[in-house]
Amino acid sequence: MKNKRVAIIGAGPSGLAQLRAFEALEKNGVQVPEIVCFEKQENWGGMWNYSWRTGVGRYGEPVHGSMYKYLWSNGPKECLEFSDYSFDEHFKKPISSYPPRPVLFDYIEGRIKKSNAKKYIRFNTTARWVDYNNANQKFTLVLDNLKENRTYSEEFDYLVVASGHFSTPNMPYFKGIEDFPGGVMHAHDFRGADQFKNQNLLLIGSSYSAEDIGVQCYKHGAKSVTLSYRSNPIGVEWPDGIKEVPLLTHFEGDIAHFADGTSEKFDAVVMCTGYQHKFPFLPDELRLKTKNNLYPDQVYKGIFFNELPQLIYLGMQDQYYTFNMFDAQAWVARDFMMEELVLPEKDQRRKDMDDWLKRLNNLDGCYDAVDFQSDYIKDLLSLSDYPDFNVDKVAEMFKEWLGDKEENILTYRDKTFTSVVTGTKAEEHHTEWMEELDDSKERYLAFQDEVEIELEKAE
Amino acid sequence: MKNKRVAIIGAGPSGLAQLRAFEALEKNGVQVPEIVCFEKQENWGGMWNYSWRTGVGRYGEPVHGSMYKYLWSNGPKECLEFSDYSFDEHFKKPISSYPPRPVLFDYIEGRIKKSNAKKYIRFNTTARWVDYNNANQKFTLVLDNLKENRTYSEEFDYLVVASGHFSTPNMPYFKGIEDFPGGVMHAHDFRGADQFKNQNLLLIGSSYSAEDIGVQCYKHGAKSVTLSYRSNPIGVEWPDGIKEVPLLTHFEGDIAHFADGTSEKFDAVVMCTGYQHKFPFLPDELRLKTKNNLYPDQVYKGIFFNELPQLIYLGMQDQYYTFNMFDAQAWVARDFMMEELVLPEKDQRRKDMDDWLKRLNNLDGCYDAVDFQSDYIKDLLSLSDYPDFNVDKVAEMFKEWLGDKEENILTYRDKTFTSVVTGTKAEEHHTEWMEELDDSKERYLAFQDEVEIELEKAE
Ligand SMILES: Cc1cc2nc3c(=O)[nH]c(=O)nc-3n(C[C@H](O)[C@H](O)[C@H](O)COP(=O)(O)OP(=O)(O)OC[C@H]3O[C@@H](n4cnc5c(N)ncnc54)[C@H](O)[C@@H]3O)c2cc1C
Ligand SMILES: Cc1cc2nc3c(=O)[nH]c(=O)nc-3n(C[C@H](O)[C@H](O)[C@H](O)COP(=O)(O)OP(=O)(O)OC[C@H]3O[C@@H](n4cnc5c(N)ncnc54)[C@H](O)[C@@H]3O)c2cc1C
Repeated sequence: MKNKRVAIIGAGPSGLAQLRAFEALEKNGVQVPEIVCFEKQENWGGMWNYSWRTGVGRYGEPVHGSMYKYLWSNGPKECLEFSDYSFDEHFKKPISSYPPRPVLFDYIEGRIKKSNAKKYIRFNTTARWVDYNNANQKFTLVLDNLKENRTYSEEFDYLVVASGHFSTPNMPYFKGIEDFPGGVMHAHDFRGADQFKNQNLLLIGSSYSAEDIGVQCYKHGAKSVTLSYRSNPIGVEWPDGIKEVPLLTHFEGDIAHFADGTSEKFDAVVMCTGYQHKFPFLPDELRLKTKNNLYPDQVYKGIFFNELPQLIYLGMQDQYYTFNMFDAQAWVARDFMMEELVLPEKDQRRKDMDDWLKRLNNLDGCYDAVDFQSDYIKDLLSLSDYPDFNVDKVAEMFKEWLGDKEENILTYRDKTFTSVVTGTKAEEHHTEWMEELDDSKERYLAFQDEVEIELEKAE
Repeated sequence: MKNKRVAIIGAGPSGLAQLRAFEALEKNGVQVPEIVCFEKQENWGGMWNYSWRTGVGRYGEPVHGSMYKYLWSNGPKECLEFSDYSFDEHFKKPISSYPPRPVLFDYIEGRIKKSNAKKYIRFNTTARWVDYNNANQKFTLVLDNLKENRTYSEEFDYLVVASGHFSTPNMPYFKGIEDFPGGVMHAHDFRGADQFKNQNLLLIGSSYSAEDIGVQCYKHGAKSVTLSYRSNPIGVEWPDGIKEVPLLTHFEGDIAHFADGTSEKFDAVVMCTGYQHKFPFLPDELRLKTKNNLYPDQVYKGIFFNELPQLIYLGMQDQYYTFNMFDAQAWVARDFMMEELVLPEKDQRRKDMDDWLKRLNNLDGCYDAVDFQSDYIKDLLSLSDYPDFNVDKVAEMFKEWLGDKEENILTYRDKTFTSVVTGTKAEEHHTEWMEELDDSKERYLAFQDEVEIELEKAE
């Protein structure tokens, strides 16, 4: 264990989970390796660290963030709760089940701020290139200090890649798009609904992003929202003002044509066409190559690169589970790096992956997918001492959430759930989500206090 | 010379100039080194290869292009003419002095298509990382085949960096910008004036981009254009509908406040705040670190990295001269790589650079700057057999152009100049620039033919 060095790329929820996992040991007096976490942004939180910037950032690196103003949790917070740091512990009182982005950012930050993990993080530093040296079995990382425009190299025994995969847009070409006169952007560059007020907006895709951006723009005053799907519509009951149409075939000026022969004029286009797993800093032999799915090939237990298990990937799955899954992964990864967990041989690992992939290929719809990822989580939990939580209950909540959305896409965020960590039942947010136009933490928390005072007075 | 390998990064005007320079020798039966040019886009032309995309491209690399629809040459074409491939040779007839982008792209392509240079170019390939090995004095390039998502390495004796420097935005933060409800973009992501029709547009900066985007948006129907300058206004006579104001201090909602205490409401913001020289693929010891200026430090004759002259930079200067300057540089670089040109010792090179830098620091205004770059061009021309051209005449044209712009920013593109390569006087474009809303090559050329036919009939 002595003198080993661990590099973590990314200080989003996954990278922070890795730091936290080591810290949990350290607090118990165990000696941990030397850890350095490289984060290209100037703050932690990954995707949750909102930036108004689009395109490339202050130092010319592609902007990581895909989140936007008015983004509220798209699943119940009870499904992502850290099992070693509850919402109760952080907020000291029950809150609603679907908090806005700044509130979840606060929660993520709350756990990590309890430790001195910040000292392990080098911000404004991009991992530029990685080489693996077979002879000494070390990774050489080239780091780029963005502020100083200066590169340097360091050696590590383990490499944890926690760089996320909802950051590099997938952006197909549609005939005529180069002559569409209005704005064209990918969801990655969408920063809020305001600029689409009174506009007729075309969203391409049927992903979470399409659904959520559509609803946000509807809520914040777009004139109309049209979603164009490739194979299957999202298929929920849309309110007047939102509709789904088949595949976009081409543009003629500002008119979009669809596969069913219909056409319509639009002011702007947002492509919600998904993201690519992209690792520009990794050479071919270390590079995970996968589409977005629940069990990427090449990684044993979803984390250990099978060709070279000292290379660890976190959070590379498509995600129902998020924070608690990253935790479960990070704890397992930690035990491996601590040489507490011994992996089976390569071909046995291969067999294990094949079993999962077989099941993956036979999944039947999203309820089945929830069960799949739940079983994956259970598998991980069995391997480390990450505080157990009731995965079956969480799976049930996910299914309820799926049903809620189908029932009413505009009101599902008004529902409440019960924590499996503390048993606390969420508060109803005082204002219905459709009426709530302010997503600040201040308003979200302060207003609740005010409401409580009002209620107390009334008693 | 035998078995030497040359890598060129970028197939824009500079990279293509380097290919062309070698080709000129080859046509005379001289054996040239093995050349590979790596281009991350799927076509050549660099900045002139227009893309509707913004942010990152199809394969997740930062989009290179900063050009937009309705971009017309911002200087007389007679100031950038290749001296070995005239506009007459390409178009077979006189054309106007300020052609639109597609016409200049056609011209760039015309010269290079005459050769078989395309076979040297690996498109869709990003130069990802470079190492220099002191022992064997070779560069190892890591290349990333974007289409195949596959990296590989190759060794080279010379490295020509022709990756441009008007691609990575400089984007300062202004207080309150994160809450500005309208669209916010850098000029790099501006793709055309149409989406700003009937809008009140704020442009930040006093660069060429600010001037040109402002005028374009005015021409194509923006309600108002306001340019905010930091230190000095552009200061030309603006038409009603365009104005200049001092530095932006902050935003409050959609209201921008300026240093003179005034404030105004805007629909959208475009930051024309310049670009960074950015070489993410180069390690510290090979990386050119400079602001945009007429004589970047670190490079002898503006091209040879003084610490390691086998590392060559093309086109890194701020530019009055463009295509003909890149040519002049590429020819000199070629002669060095052919071992025909021997460079002085490092300290002598340093002294030469210092002399230029001293003069640079004492430049007095843009007329002086034109003379400075003209003298630089003459210096280059004296070193190789690139076909001589009358630099003094070109300098005069640049000065005339500067005057024309001051006189009338809306009509300067209607002026005509005379080629120093062929002596041909440019045609007047049949339609005044302010009336010409179509920038296609077809319209630009076909319409001229039609006009000629009309004229012939009339005779
Ligand atoms: C629009 C959107 C909405 C979402 N909404 C929700 C939601 O409501 N609930 C939910 O649970 N999940 C949501 N998610 C999923 C979200 O991705 C996860 O919650 C979580 O952020 C993933 O964490 P991560 O650490 O794996 O990756 P990220 O959060 O993406 O963090 C990766 C970090 O790595 C850094 N990085 C990348 N490359 C480098 C490099 N070369 N060098 C140094 N640093 C680097 C990045 O800057 C970033 O900080 C949403 C995602 C998107 C895109
Ligand atoms: C908005 C705008 C308007 C302009 N208008 C004019 C004008 O009117 N007249 C004029 O003369 N000049 C104009 N210019 C200047 C223009 O930059 C030059 O004309 C010319 O394009 C510079 O040529 P270059 O080859 O040096 O760089 P670029 O044209 O920028 O080409 C660089 C090439 O390198 C490639 N590349 C970059 N990084 C990598 C990598 N890592 N791996 C592989 N390939 C890479 C890029 O994809 C690109 O193709 C304008 C510039 C801008 C931004």
